[in-house]
Order: sequence, then C-alpha cells, then structure tokens
Amino acid sequence: MRSLLLIGIGPGDPDALTLGAVRAMRRADVFFFLEKADAGRDALIDVRRRLLAAHAGDRPYRVVSGRTPARDRAAEDYADAVADWRDRRTRVIGDLIDRDLMPGETGGVLIWGDPGLYDGTLQSVQDLIAEGRGDLRVEVVPGIASPQALAARHRVPLNRVGESLTVTTGRLIGSADPDTVTNHLVMLDGRHAYRHLTGYDLDIHWGADLGTPDEVLIAGPLDAVADRIGATLDAKRAAKGWVMDSYLLRKRREGP
Amino acid sequence: MRSLLLIGIGPGDPDALTLGAVRAMRRADVFFFLEKADAGRDALIDVRRRLLAAHAGDRPYRVVSGRTPARDRAAEDYADAVADWRDRRTRVIGDLIDRDLMPGETGGVLIWGDPGLYDGTLQSVQDLIAEGRGDLRVEVVPGIASPQALAARHRVPLNRVGESLTVTTGRLIGSADPDTVTNHLVMLDGRHAYRHLTGYDLDIHWGADLGTPDEVLIAGPLDAVADRIGATLDAKRAAKGWVMDSYLLRKRREGP
Repeated sequence: MRSLLLIGIGPGDPDALTLGAVRAMRRADVFFFLEKADAGRDALIDVRRRLLAAHAGDRPYRVVSGRTPARDRAAEDYADAVADWRDRRTRVIGDLIDRDLMPGETGGVLIWGDPGLYDGTLQSVQDLIAEGRGDLRVEVVPGIASPQALAARHRVPLNRVGESLTVTTGRLIGSADPDTVTNHLVMLDGRHAYRHLTGYDLDIHWGADLGTPDEVLIAGPLDAVADRIGATLDAKRAAKGWVMDSYLLRKRREGP
Repeated sequence: MRSLLLIGIGPGDPDALTLGAVRAMRRADVFFFLEKADAGRDALIDVRRRLLAAHAGDRPYRVVSGRTPARDRAAEDYADAVADWRDRRTRVIGDLIDRDLMPGETGGVLIWGDPGLYDGTLQSVQDLIAEGRGDLRVEVVPGIASPQALAARHRVPLNRVGESLTVTTGRLIGSADPDTVTNHLVMLDGRHAYRHLTGYDLDIHWGADLGTPDEVLIAGPLDAVADRIGATLDAKRAAKGWVMDSYLLRKRREGP
C-alpha cells in the first residue's frame, strides 16, 4: 500500500496550522509540491519549504516538485476548459505519484486553506485511485479555510440568525442576480466581480493575504469602499504578480 | 483594557486544534465555560477541561463556569424565541465578564468548531462592547468547523466544479424547496430534516461525533440510507442525551 496525505495548511498564517497537520507532516516520506506554472509559484513554494523546515522534524524526507498546468482563462467554454485543465493536472499528479511514491511509503501534499474547499487535488487523487491504483490510500487533514480566517480577522460571524451562508466563486457571483445575494462568501475572484454588485445595499468585509504581514482588511458599505478595494487589489497584483483575496457580501438588514 | 479571546477548538478531535489556539490558551488568565443547561453540558465541559490540562501550560489560570440558558424550542415565533434567548445569553456572558475579567486581564472562551459559524458568542460580545464596555477588546482564533471535518473524514470535496456550497441549518433546509438543494451542508439539525428530502436524487454524506472514538460516518443515496441515519441518531441520543451531527446533501449529476 501507498498513502497520500492531503494536508490543509490554512490561508497563510503559520499559526493556522493544526496539530493534526503537524503530525501528518512528520509522517510523510516524500512531499509533493504541486504548484501552478504562474506568477505566484516561487512564493508559494517558499511558504511550503518554511513550514516543512519548522515542523517536519529531523528525519529525512524528500521533496518532489511538479509543475502543474495553469488554466486557459481565455477559453470560451468554461466547463470544457476546467475539465481539460483538471485532466492535465491529474496526469501530472499521477506521474509524480507513480514515479516517486514507493510501496509502503507515505506522501504528503501541503494544500493552501482546506483540501475540501475549491482545491482540485482531492478529486484528482480519487480519480487516480478509481482508474486502477488500488494500492493508493488517501487521507485528508482539514485546514483553516480563508472564509474562517476572513471572518476571524474582521471579528464578524459568518452567518446571521436564521440565514444560510453561501460559499462561492468570483465567476459565479459575477453572473448571479444581485437580488439573490444575502450572505455570500466569495473566494477566487481575481476579476473584481464585486463591482457588479454596487447599488444593492450590500456591506462587504474584504481581506487579502490574511494572517500574513501583508494583510489588508477593508470593511464597509460596498458602494463606498469598492474603489478602495479595487485599487488595493491592483497595487498588490502589480507588486508581486498575484494576490489571494476573499470577501463576505451581506445584504443590509435590521437586527443581527 | 480587558481582552477576550474566542478560541475555536474544532469539532471534537484534539488534533483539530490549531497552533494559534494553543498559543491563545496559554495567554488567558481566566477561561469562561459558557455551557447550556442541557443534557450535553457535563460532557462538553469535560472536553474543555481536558484541552486546558493538555495545552494551557503550567502557569495558574482560573475557570469560571456560567450556565447559559437553553432555548425555548416549543415557542411559536422562531425569531422572537431566538432574540429572547440570545439576549438572555448575552446578559449571562456580560455578568461573568464584568465580575470575573479584571482590568489588564485576558479571558478565553473555548468554542466548539469555529467561532464564526453558527455560534452566537461573538455577536453577544460585540453587543456587550457596543452597549458601553469600551475597555473590552475581542479577538477571534478560527477553528476547524464541522463541514470541513465531515468532508475530510469522507474524503470528498465540499464543492464540485462550477458550483457553490450553501452552509445552512436543519431548520432552514426543512422548509427549503427540495428542487433548490444542489450542494448543501447542514449543521444543527436535530429534527431529522433530511427525511423531507428523499425522492429528489440526492446523495448524502453524514457524520456524527467527528474525529472522536464515537464517530459514525454514513454515505450513499439519501433514499437508501435515510433510515439508517435516523436509527443511528436515535440510538446516540438515547445513549447520551445529545448528538452532534452534520451532513452534505448533493444533487446527483454527471461528472465531478
């Protein structure tokens, strides 16, 4: 048997690591860095190297870096483009596992945030097992996701009484009917989707680089702060080529 | 100034604690146990005592137990009943803080799961600050929430490609149009709300007592496993008077 640990490492704050994640790091013989070939690659790899240096212990471990494909964001058919990208990414992960995870060994993948939320690695590994790798076992170590870190830093609850929370993406919120937005947490925006939602009595709690020295938090009526958020995003992207942000959009109402 | 740390401790698995939560436990001079006066009270207090014994360090700390009110679940007007319960709970917390958190001290509250998700303590403390406790500062330490623990234990992603995740309650899902249920995570059920959703091509991933020795996981087509989930819930409730469960409901579809 071979084991693969998908280890959630939280949204960037080293304190967001769980005791279970630390324990998992100490179990792995080999770590796979599955970074996209894009602007953030080197910085994200650095974070992982630092976490391993701090927590993986003194025993020897190997690190294998795989350059996973970037998605074709210009493609016309979103579903096709995602399916194609996922498939290419699954192939890269499969090749790495087949080559570098030996029988009896345990591999580890450090995953930003939580492995269950808007990260494709778990589905790729399940696909790899389903296509015939019966000797591969996957284990998931949950991590603090950016919605929780965002709410904690702003000191606001994610839900209000009697209301659901919808966790969604910039792409989906960009095409949503603004009247249906009541209490929505948006991840993976990158296209300023919140701009389409001004004029609807929404409040926003926005954050980037949560729990890191570069953290920025902005909160207020969306109509009043949208420009400031946009300028902050543009400045961050200009400075380092990428940015990780998330935000809570909330319809204004009476009471808590 | 007085500080109050709201510390997420995860859904029951001691390994779900973050390094930040451990650090926060070591900062507090006094811990407030705010347990409801109901069947689970003693067991939940035991969990907190064990966590403090394991992690709060050798320096002295005080523990103050407050018996917070149970909600009137028979009340006809849900919003009124919740508002009344919240208000009484806020008063209890305010009295404890005013009596037992001295100037210059740091208090800690250990909160099941994540302080931002379906827990009223943060809003109560914000209300207490707003009514005039200008010397009180609150800090939130995020914790692993049961949705993440559930998905991790079942080894399934919380979202599928191109789809949102709605985090909601048993009460809300019980009155939802079943056709609108696509990918919903239900917390705080306690009324077998999933039973109303059979016959709609939904799959369920259900779990109780996640990450503890009493953990039970059930997954499959809702129509096929609803009875087994119901019997498990009833047995657990009969055995210890309470149960913590959550589940992911997912409309069956082609593809991932």
